[in-house]
Amino acid sequence: MKLKFIFLILFFIIGNSIGIKISKEINKIKLNDISIDGEILLNKSSDSSSSQSSKIINIWPMPKKVLNGDITVYISPHFQFTTNLTKSTTLKKAMDRYYKLIFTEDSKSHSGISILNEIKILVKSEDETLQIGFDESYEIYIDDSGDDGGKIIAETVYGAIRGLETLYQMIGFDYQREYYQIKHCPWIIQDSPRYPHRGVMLDTSRHFYSVDVLKEFIEALAYNKFNVFHWHAVDSQSFPLTSTTFPKITKGSWSSQEIYSTRDIKEIIQHAKEYGIRVELEIDMPGHAYSWGIGYPSVLPANFSHSIQCQQPCPTECNIPLDVSSKESYVIAMGLLEEFNGASMFNESFFHIGGDEVAYSCWNNSLRIVDWMKRENISSFQDAAIFFEIKAIEQLIQLGKTPVMWEDAYLLFGSSGITEKLPEEVVVQIYHDPLLALNTTRDGYKTLQSPYWPYYLDNPSVDWEKVYEFEPSNGIHEKRLRLLLGGETCMWSELVDASNLFAKVFPRAFATAERLWFSIENSNSTTFAKPRLERFRCFLLERGIGAAPLNSTSPDDPNSCYSS
Amino acid sequence: MKLKFIFLILFFIIGNSIGIKISKEINKIKLNDISIDGEILLNKSSDSSSSQSSKIINIWPMPKKVLNGDITVYISPHFQFTTNLTKSTTLKKAMDRYYKLIFTEDSKSHSGISILNEIKILVKSEDETLQIGFDESYEIYIDDSGDDGGKIIAETVYGAIRGLETLYQMIGFDYQREYYQIKHCPWIIQDSPRYPHRGVMLDTSRHFYSVDVLKEFIEALAYNKFNVFHWHAVDSQSFPLTSTTFPKITKGSWSSQEIYSTRDIKEIIQHAKEYGIRVELEIDMPGHAYSWGIGYPSVLPANFSHSIQCQQPCPTECNIPLDVSSKESYVIAMGLLEEFNGASMFNESFFHIGGDEVAYSCWNNSLRIVDWMKRENISSFQDAAIFFEIKAIEQLIQLGKTPVMWEDAYLLFGSSGITEKLPEEVVVQIYHDPLLALNTTRDGYKTLQSPYWPYYLDNPSVDWEKVYEFEPSNGIHEKRLRLLLGGETCMWSELVDASNLFAKVFPRAFATAERLWFSIENSNSTTFAKPRLERFRCFLLERGIGAAPLNSTSPDDPNSCYSS
Repeated sequence: MKLKFIFLILFFIIGNSIGIKISKEINKIKLNDISIDGEILLNKSSDSSSSQSSKIINIWPMPKKVLNGDITVYISPHFQFTTNLTKSTTLKKAMDRYYKLIFTEDSKSHSGISILNEIKILVKSEDETLQIGFDESYEIYIDDSGDDGGKIIAETVYGAIRGLETLYQMIGFDYQREYYQIKHCPWIIQDSPRYPHRGVMLDTSRHFYSVDVLKEFIEALAYNKFNVFHWHAVDSQSFPLTSTTFPKITKGSWSSQEIYSTRDIKEIIQHAKEYGIRVELEIDMPGHAYSWGIGYPSVLPANFSHSIQCQQPCPTECNIPLDVSSKESYVIAMGLLEEFNGASMFNESFFHIGGDEVAYSCWNNSLRIVDWMKRENISSFQDAAIFFEIKAIEQLIQLGKTPVMWEDAYLLFGSSGITEKLPEEVVVQIYHDPLLALNTTRDGYKTLQSPYWPYYLDNPSVDWEKVYEFEPSNGIHEKRLRLLLGGETCMWSELVDASNLFAKVFPRAFATAERLWFSIENSNSTTFAKPRLERFRCFLLERGIGAAPLNSTSPDDPNSCYSS
Repeated sequence: MKLKFIFLILFFIIGNSIGIKISKEINKIKLNDISIDGEILLNKSSDSSSSQSSKIINIWPMPKKVLNGDITVYISPHFQFTTNLTKSTTLKKAMDRYYKLIFTEDSKSHSGISILNEIKILVKSEDETLQIGFDESYEIYIDDSGDDGGKIIAETVYGAIRGLETLYQMIGFDYQREYYQIKHCPWIIQDSPRYPHRGVMLDTSRHFYSVDVLKEFIEALAYNKFNVFHWHAVDSQSFPLTSTTFPKITKGSWSSQEIYSTRDIKEIIQHAKEYGIRVELEIDMPGHAYSWGIGYPSVLPANFSHSIQCQQPCPTECNIPLDVSSKESYVIAMGLLEEFNGASMFNESFFHIGGDEVAYSCWNNSLRIVDWMKRENISSFQDAAIFFEIKAIEQLIQLGKTPVMWEDAYLLFGSSGITEKLPEEVVVQIYHDPLLALNTTRDGYKTLQSPYWPYYLDNPSVDWEKVYEFEPSNGIHEKRLRLLLGGETCMWSELVDASNLFAKVFPRAFATAERLWFSIENSNSTTFAKPRLERFRCFLLERGIGAAPLNSTSPDDPNSCYSS
């Protein structure tokens, strides 16, 4: 059967069945079915993970299923994106954005055949809610003749945005002949993510980042098909978030210039939404709270010397906890949760309340806390921490939110002598031993993987290969795999600010992005990844994201961005 | 005696004695001499190294002598730089440049007293030759009344450029009141560098840098008062320098886009000259020469598999040396030295010919070399290397240049069984044990310090404190200190390109810059340096140089660039 005929049928079906899963149709296409003049045209018919194509598919992260051929289709200078979902501003903006990102050069009309005039973006659902598990699947079809145009089909606008990113990576410019083109047509791509939660955490407390930098950071996440920006907004070092309820809280910021206004916060959330990125705010409590006390001293335990340098005597690190015997601690903590989870603020259901590294030694120095514990019949600092954390968890649940906490909470509630159980709603984020996921999932908790090795990017000795090789599901029983929601790579900002953020996060977070998007089964996985990853870095550099070189030595060959 | 009167006298003397060293006059000013209404006005009367002022002098690197007071002088919106050396384009450009860099905001007229309308730049010599030891000294005088303006006095235009950089760091903008101002007037600064050779080496072979990036890099060096850009231009991985004599040599570049044309090279040299930076080219030979052989295969030893990935079997690293038995090796090597030392090319007297890490194993695999050695009665590979290196050294000397070589050359000529002496003209650059300088200076060689610990910036575990604490003169006999010309910090580019260059080099190279400029005698030197260094980083960020945060943890206090 002639290829063209198959495609005509195929596109007819697709064009008339928006939103109907056409996988069955696609799966009918077998390598041996499709040939022109005796030559096999499609060079991949299996899952992209298990075959090493002779041609490099320069798409990052690797899509779930890819079939492609050998024909080059030229893009008309009059090319346009069209859509059925004309009412969606989000989609309209994404189409405009990608149009501008792709078509940066003046191009000529190609006089030959195989001219692509249009790509239709067909979206089934009008629902633009961004929550855990939102649909990011998409399909791309590019005919080898160009006549029938191309299509991106998706359930949601966010799937369409992921598809546009893939398309961006497929379109090249021939600088000699001045044509935009898509090589290796026809293309059939069917793609959806492996995990629903794929994030990068950024700490804006140790160093401040301007709104513009955060917006660019969010864009870089979307280019990687991440879907979560975990905003570790506050810590002991600074509290840059404006609160209308507690206006003095930003006295704990680095300076009056280094504050996110309410308007800034909304702008960041809105920007992220336009890129299909959930913003999960973290307000770490009761630990790492020194900065709260600059404006509201009564929330901190007594008996440490106030010092802006955060070098108090009680803990070894600068992580003074809230005084959990102080009424104001509850008023402010619960009030902040209420404010930031308000209708016009963080509408993402996940909200992170930290719960890590509570420095009990600070409490031990404070008579007020010790007396309070006696009065309340609380026999250990662990119980005192639980007393507070339960209140914060309950507050979030009452606000309709899902609490996320660092593994310390899971370990605290499970430690010896503690009968209280960690509420089942809590999502546990692991940051030490990834094998702790065996326990958390066994106990029924939804789990996120952020083991410091290799997911903490402040460690300069972690290279991208180590990140890429880390498999977050290792050891978890198959039946409990559904509880592993995904993971996050983390950028703590002690040594990082806008000057080096992008070069520190990338390329290593590229590796996380693919691992969480795509099931990598190839034993020689970094070899499989490297040429695509080098090319993907260029795709980011082209958009002004200064990702660092990924090579462990010098480049292997002249596949620099210049020679692309 | 009233301060104003002293200054009137002083400025009269200065104004009429351009080029006469006025140190004697300045030294007459003693702390107790100068007071207004009983208050001591000048808060520093000693060398800046030995006193910890209550006020931070935000100048980097620290000038040799600084005296200042407590008066703020406001800068008129009609402020201008003037000079006696009106014919100098270099100076004119520098004045225009700093005017634009300093005055970025609309400012208001101040109605009060102490208004500065002008700074005179008085330069004695018209000689703009850039060679080792060129005069960079300068003096700055800012009256506390503003009436008499200010002065920068220098021997050469390059001293004036160093003075302008210091002035840049003294002028601030009051964002509330919209005035430019100089705080802590009056100012008397007398400054000159500790070492004549203060450089940063950059490797453009492992990764290519565009001309624009190299020009910005040179600017950043000048802001640090470095005076040498050691351009490690070529290596085994790529040969990006165009040669008109050997046009095929750039076949060894990464791609046709990643080449420096003759025009590019001249542009870089000219740009550096305008910033008072000597460009010392390195063409490493006979080691690290694989890239030469892409265009001219006969220069490489036989018996290694040609592979663009540079993973030949003979050495463990990719540093295939030239075949010293091949006539073409001499023709090309000596020809390149002649071409790049031509009148319109590198006019700096120092020229680096590497000489490091010659992989003898590659020669051992080549019958051609072994046969040649027998014919020439050369009994060891060491002697074979010397045979070649002597030719290169003699070629440079004949061209009127000073050869610079890595320590390997010094060690090779001095090794057992070798009677040939390293020519006394060779400057030895140490990159392993800095104490080797005891031997090189004992043997009468001019010496540069670049010990890999802590001067190799590709090592991520070196922090700025380690760089700052390293004293290059340690152990060297006082009588031989004149042979220590200075040092260079080195950026090898295996993992670095334009995306992360500035954040990798700075702030660590800041530390080298001050150590080589200023005699640091303070035992608590990093404490002395840190606040100024933090401020200096802001001075670079303001000019678009993305220096990384210098903190070993998070910032100590809200002294971020925002709050300045």
